[in-house]
Amino acid sequence: MNFKFSERISTLQPSAIREILKVTQDPTVISFAAGNPAPESFPAAEMASIAAEIFANNAASALQYGVTEGYGPLKELTAKRMKEKYNIGRTFDDIIITSGGQQAIEMLTKALVNEGDVILCEMPSFIGALNAFRSYNAKLIGIPMDHDGMDMEVLERTLQTTQNVKFIYTIPTFQNPSGHVMSLERRKKLLELAQKYNVLILEDSPYFELRFAGEYVPPIKSMDETGCVLFSGSYSKILAPGIRIGFAIAPKELISKLTVAKQVSDVHTNLFFQMIAAEYLKRYDLDAHIAKICDLYRTRAELMCNRIDEKFGGKVQYVRPTGGLFLWCSLPEGYDSMDFCRKTGEKKVVAVPGSSFSIDEREITPSFRMNYSLPSEEQICKGIDLMAEVLHDYVK
Amino acid sequence: MNFKFSERISTLQPSAIREILKVTQDPTVISFAAGNPAPESFPAAEMASIAAEIFANNAASALQYGVTEGYGPLKELTAKRMKEKYNIGRTFDDIIITSGGQQAIEMLTKALVNEGDVILCEMPSFIGALNAFRSYNAKLIGIPMDHDGMDMEVLERTLQTTQNVKFIYTIPTFQNPSGHVMSLERRKKLLELAQKYNVLILEDSPYFELRFAGEYVPPIKSMDETGCVLFSGSYSKILAPGIRIGFAIAPKELISKLTVAKQVSDVHTNLFFQMIAAEYLKRYDLDAHIAKICDLYRTRAELMCNRIDEKFGGKVQYVRPTGGLFLWCSLPEGYDSMDFCRKTGEKKVVAVPGSSFSIDEREITPSFRMNYSLPSEEQICKGIDLMAEVLHDYVK
Repeated sequence: MNFKFSERISTLQPSAIREILKVTQDPTVISFAAGNPAPESFPAAEMASIAAEIFANNAASALQYGVTEGYGPLKELTAKRMKEKYNIGRTFDDIIITSGGQQAIEMLTKALVNEGDVILCEMPSFIGALNAFRSYNAKLIGIPMDHDGMDMEVLERTLQTTQNVKFIYTIPTFQNPSGHVMSLERRKKLLELAQKYNVLILEDSPYFELRFAGEYVPPIKSMDETGCVLFSGSYSKILAPGIRIGFAIAPKELISKLTVAKQVSDVHTNLFFQMIAAEYLKRYDLDAHIAKICDLYRTRAELMCNRIDEKFGGKVQYVRPTGGLFLWCSLPEGYDSMDFCRKTGEKKVVAVPGSSFSIDEREITPSFRMNYSLPSEEQICKGIDLMAEVLHDYVK
Repeated sequence: MNFKFSERISTLQPSAIREILKVTQDPTVISFAAGNPAPESFPAAEMASIAAEIFANNAASALQYGVTEGYGPLKELTAKRMKEKYNIGRTFDDIIITSGGQQAIEMLTKALVNEGDVILCEMPSFIGALNAFRSYNAKLIGIPMDHDGMDMEVLERTLQTTQNVKFIYTIPTFQNPSGHVMSLERRKKLLELAQKYNVLILEDSPYFELRFAGEYVPPIKSMDETGCVLFSGSYSKILAPGIRIGFAIAPKELISKLTVAKQVSDVHTNLFFQMIAAEYLKRYDLDAHIAKICDLYRTRAELMCNRIDEKFGGKVQYVRPTGGLFLWCSLPEGYDSMDFCRKTGEKKVVAVPGSSFSIDEREITPSFRMNYSLPSEEQICKGIDLMAEVLHDYVK
C-alpha cells in the first residue's frame, strides 16, 4: 500500500553522517566517531552480583510491570545525590526516571512544542536532540557559541524578536560536539533571561560529572530558584548506556506531563535495571567509580592531544578538553570537514564531520568531532597517524 | 514560571480510573483491575542463569550502546518464530524490537498521524492505545463490536464517509477489555477493506498466544499479502513485562520510519534483556512455557466464572473467555459501572469501569473489566464473594 507519513516525520531525513559511519562496522576501522563510553568502565562485576541477588530474592517484582514515574528507591537515591552533591532540586521540583537522557528531550518537546514553535539551540549541537526537535516540526534557531558557551547578546536579541520560543536547549558542561563549558557568568545570565522572557531551559547534562581537569562550574539547575530549568541527567556515561536509564528533575507540573507522555510511550523503563542501579547507589561508591572513569579519559584525551600536536603540524585547531568524551577539531577556514572525513574513512579511520551537528546539515564546516573515550591507546596513536597522512595530503 | 503545554498534551487528562485504582496500593485490597500477568509465570530461574553467563562472557557488549532496530539475534529468532509458527511476515516486511507493545502504538501514531487525522478503533478499546492516539491530537472514531469483533458494515460506511483515516486499530484476539476474538470471516473482510480504502491496520496482539480454549484463528497479518498490516507483538505476557520488550513486523518503508522515531525517543531497548530474551528463545521451549501459562489462566478464568455463576445470581452478564487476561462483565442496562466499581472499592475489591475504555470517558456504561491472571485462587473466591454482597445491595 501507499504510506502517507505525517508531516513531522516525513521531514526527518536519514543523516548524511550515516554513510560515513557505515564503515565503522568493519572491525579493522579505527573509529573516533562514536559517542560511547569505554566498556572497561562498566561496573559489570558489581552489577552481576546485584542481578543474581535480585533474581534470587525479588524476581517477581523486578520482572513485573512498574510505575511510569520510575522505581521509588532509584528516584529517591538519585534525587538525594543530586541535591546533596550538586544542590539540584527544590521543593517545587520532582523527578522522573527516563529510558536514557534522550527520552527526556523527546518527551519535553512533545509536551511543550506545537508544530512551528521555536526551540533555541547552541550552534553546533547534539544531533539526537536536533532530530528529536525536528520530529515535532519545531523551528530551530541556532545561537552561536564560543569557548565560554552561548553568545548571550545574540540570545537576548533572539528572545526579544521571536514569537513562540518554547525552550532553550543547552549542554552547558562538556558540550556535544564542541566540548565547551559555559562559564558561570553566562549560566547566571542565561537563567536571568529565561526568567525575564518566561522561557524554559532544557539543561542536558550527560557528561557533567566527567571532569578530569579545570574547575567545577555549578549546573544551571543548582541556581534555579523559580522553576525554569529542566535538568536531564543520565547513568549512560557513569554506569552503562545499554541499560537505558536517565532521569529528569523539573517542576512538578512539568514532570506530571512527562509522566503522561512516558505512560503512552514505553509505560516505564526496564524495571530490573532500575533496581540494579538503585542497589549500586546504595552499596558502592559511585563517586569513586566516576573518579576512575575520569582518570581513564584524562589519559586518553591527553594522548590524543599530544599525538595531534606531534603529527598534525598545526594544521588543525582545537582546545584541550577538561572533561567529557569529545575533542572538537577545525581544519583551516574554507576546508570542508565532510570531504576530509570521507577521505580519512577511505584510510579506515573515522571522525564525525561538523555538518552533522548543524541545524542545516548541508552547511559546509571546517570542524569535526573526535571521540577519545572508546578507542584504546594503541588505536588512538595509530588512528591519529593515519589521519595525519590524509591531512598533509589534503591541507598543503 | 508559567508553562504553556502543547495542544496535543494539554488535551490529555489523567484518567478517572486512577481514583479507583489508588486503593489497589493498599495490600489488603483484592485487585481484579490489573492487566498484569501472573508473576509465577516468569521464567526467572532460566533468565538468571542466562544473565550470569552474559555478565561473565559478554558484559562489555551487553552494557554498551546498541542499534536502534534491535539486537540482531533477537530480531532473527522472533521473525523466524512468527513466520514458522504463524505465517507472519513476507519478503516486503521487516522487524523492529520495541520497548514493549505500547511503543509500537505510539511510534506508529507519530509516524502517520497529523493533528486532526482519524484513527478508527474498536469500541471499547485499550486505554493505553487511546491515550497514545490522543497524545497526537488524533480524532478517534469508535466502531461498535459484538462477540465476533468489529461491525464490518459500520466500518465500511465510516471508511466511505471519512477523510484522512490513517489506520484502523484492532486487538483481534482476546481483545482488551472485552476478551472478544474477531472471527476469521471478519478478519478477511477487514483486510479487504484496508486494501480497498488504502488504510493501514494496526494489529495489536499482546495476548494472542494465550489461548486456553476454543479454536485458533489466524492473525490478520498472516493473510496480509499486500503490506497493509503492522503486527505488534510483545514478550510482556509470555516472558515478563518489566523487561519492556516487544516487536513490530510491517513493510520495510514503515519500519524504517519507526526506526527514526525510536532513535530520537529511547535510542534502543535495554540491550542486556534483549540478549536474555534471544538466549531464552535459543535454549528453551517457549511454546511449552506458554502452554503452562495457558493452563494457569484456564484454571483461574474457570474459577472466576464458576464463582460468579454461583454468587452473582445472574445479575451480571458475561461470555466465558477462551484466552487472554480479561473477563468483560455487564450489569443490567441502565446501571453505571463507575458507581458500582466505586462501591466495590469501598469493600476493598476493585475492577475497572467500562468508561475507562470509551472514546468519551464520560460515557455511562454498565460494563466493567475483571482480570483473572494476577489474583490467586483464594483472592478470586474472596473477591467475588465481596463483590456479590455489593451487587445484591446495588441491583435489586
